[in-house]
Amino acid sequence: MEFRKGGLSNVRGVRCGGAREGKYGVALIEARGPIAGVFTTNRCAAAPVLWTKRVVARGGAAGIIANSGCANCMTGPRGLRDAREMASLGAALLGASPEEVAVASTGIIGVELDLGRVRALLGEVEMGSSAAASRAAADALRTTDLRPKEVAVRFSGANIGGIAKGSGMIAPRMATLLAFLVTDARLSAPALRAALRRAADRSFNRLVIDGDTSTNDMALLLSTGRGPRVSTARFARALEAACVDLTRQLARDGEGATRLVEVEVRGARSEAEAARAARTIVGSNLVKSAIYGANPNWGRVAGALGRAGVALKPGRIDVALAGPQGRVFLAKGGLSKDRERARPWLRKSEVRIEVDLGIGRGRATAWGCDLSPEYVKINAEYS
Amino acid sequence: MEFRKGGLSNVRGVRCGGAREGKYGVALIEARGPIAGVFTTNRCAAAPVLWTKRVVARGGAAGIIANSGCANCMTGPRGLRDAREMASLGAALLGASPEEVAVASTGIIGVELDLGRVRALLGEVEMGSSAAASRAAADALRTTDLRPKEVAVRFSGANIGGIAKGSGMIAPRMATLLAFLVTDARLSAPALRAALRRAADRSFNRLVIDGDTSTNDMALLLSTGRGPRVSTARFARALEAACVDLTRQLARDGEGATRLVEVEVRGARSEAEAARAARTIVGSNLVKSAIYGANPNWGRVAGALGRAGVALKPGRIDVALAGPQGRVFLAKGGLSKDRERARPWLRKSEVRIEVDLGIGRGRATAWGCDLSPEYVKINAEYS
Repeated sequence: MEFRKGGLSNVRGVRCGGAREGKYGVALIEARGPIAGVFTTNRCAAAPVLWTKRVVARGGAAGIIANSGCANCMTGPRGLRDAREMASLGAALLGASPEEVAVASTGIIGVELDLGRVRALLGEVEMGSSAAASRAAADALRTTDLRPKEVAVRFSGANIGGIAKGSGMIAPRMATLLAFLVTDARLSAPALRAALRRAADRSFNRLVIDGDTSTNDMALLLSTGRGPRVSTARFARALEAACVDLTRQLARDGEGATRLVEVEVRGARSEAEAARAARTIVGSNLVKSAIYGANPNWGRVAGALGRAGVALKPGRIDVALAGPQGRVFLAKGGLSKDRERARPWLRKSEVRIEVDLGIGRGRATAWGCDLSPEYVKINAEYS
Repeated sequence: MEFRKGGLSNVRGVRCGGAREGKYGVALIEARGPIAGVFTTNRCAAAPVLWTKRVVARGGAAGIIANSGCANCMTGPRGLRDAREMASLGAALLGASPEEVAVASTGIIGVELDLGRVRALLGEVEMGSSAAASRAAADALRTTDLRPKEVAVRFSGANIGGIAKGSGMIAPRMATLLAFLVTDARLSAPALRAALRRAADRSFNRLVIDGDTSTNDMALLLSTGRGPRVSTARFARALEAACVDLTRQLARDGEGATRLVEVEVRGARSEAEAARAARTIVGSNLVKSAIYGANPNWGRVAGALGRAGVALKPGRIDVALAGPQGRVFLAKGGLSKDRERARPWLRKSEVRIEVDLGIGRGRATAWGCDLSPEYVKINAEYS
């Protein structure tokens, strides 16, 4: 398995493009074949989520159209009509029917979609198979994201490519932010679905920027089938690696983030409990504020662990910081250790916290970022 | 029922005092009689929580000793020995046995208690029944709190008085921060327990400063029995009013807070669902950041509602801001309304959000504060 540059452009049978002006952006991806998706569990789900669930239920698609600048959420019955109209606009360019086009939106809630702007931007989109086309599509999705997010993985002669956006309102549950993945590996819709669910559960669903679950989250996976048949196990591993890579890009670019935070919990009763503990730590405002201040106050980690709803024995908890240079323990057996020696480790751009609960074999990793005054500023003004 | 000044000093049979120096403070309250308590559900509960649970299980107590500056949490077997020693120090002054003295600590986790400082401060405590003595006790509990919190309620010829502390790491679940309440109403331990559970559930348990549940939370209620017998229903109402008043003081003084936020959810399927929805809204970093910025982005409220795990129909949701002048609707029937007219309402020191889900009769209120860059600063440096 090998990571590559160029995002979607690596995948045979895919064309894409994007354009943006001001707060609005439009991306179009052409990829014909079976489709799978996971969606937000937010009960105020946006109109495009409802639309695209139907497309995924049909099992096959011709592509994806997405806009930034407006979530098309809490927009009443008009919202679904607008989502359908977006699908039609994409379908016309792809030579497909609207029912074959997935739709995604991201941006402000409670504001109606400006279809005129979507139409105008779509007119500027140049479809292509180049790295620049993939970058333009990823760039068109950005809202408060500072950087576009792309990934490409090659394995067994097949390819997976993806783009994603997301910077705030991120605490996916059984769902995710916006991520569009395509592959040329020949796989059925059920095989795609199984692989996507598992990969999303181990990547996007373990990302917490601020504990708020978006109304517009979705991850889509399309196969063009232009590459070789591959084993589903190899495909699942490659897909998980691609999703984890995007997740790390998303965490690093969390709203106001100055540091990527990775938390691995080991020794839990099960993987599920390890994941819950890791998510709780990485999502704690107190842990995040301490990391922003390079403050080795591991009591914040203990406090978060204690409310995570997982089995634990306080006297067995180890907390360490890890890096290429090795590891420094903040706590061993539930008692403070090299607190002060840890301070410089917390000033790095990547902070990896390793927690051992010492009671089982469950292990999981979660990702997030620190909490900075800039996060508050961004969201105090967001409109 | 009437609110009074003077906190604990209103309650017959109570003496108290407090002293502080630097980060450490010590408060002592004498009140002999039946006791009830609710405690943190955090599984890394601090040693004094374990100690005081035993005192409460005995049913009667002579008083409470509490310190700020150190949580005595994650301190191994020594923690419980230190908590017992604190109880002994208090017991010597109260002429009681250590088993009759409740102990509470608040401050940094993972650091051992400095019993020498506790002993020295205790030597400076002047016990009394005055308003100044109550204020000294409340003041000794402060950590990042800017203001001491006291309450006194008179009803049916009886009195309830209380003090509390708490500013961060606040998202109590079946428990609370530190709150010590005393009454002179003659009531049994089981009656006190029932009233305290219900009142805490409707006040402290509906307060969210930052979503982090403390390891040291507890609320204690003692009756000296020096006043009249009262109906349990009247007592419960007065106690709830006292706890809500303390809760509002705690919310207003949340770490970095510039505004008190009160969220009432109506029209939910049940009171429990209304409470869950209200807590989720008031705890959302995005809602809190928007309020800090006086930004009428009610999509943040919809986003939080949708992930609260409660029954709802997006097309029925009303969101309003309320104040003495009336009410302004941000959304009606799930669609945007007087967004811009609402901006000045968000600049007040108290922001009250009223949400109607329009599907049932459940109603509940939750309290919190906005999220400011100052919160991050405080917790980046806390040690």
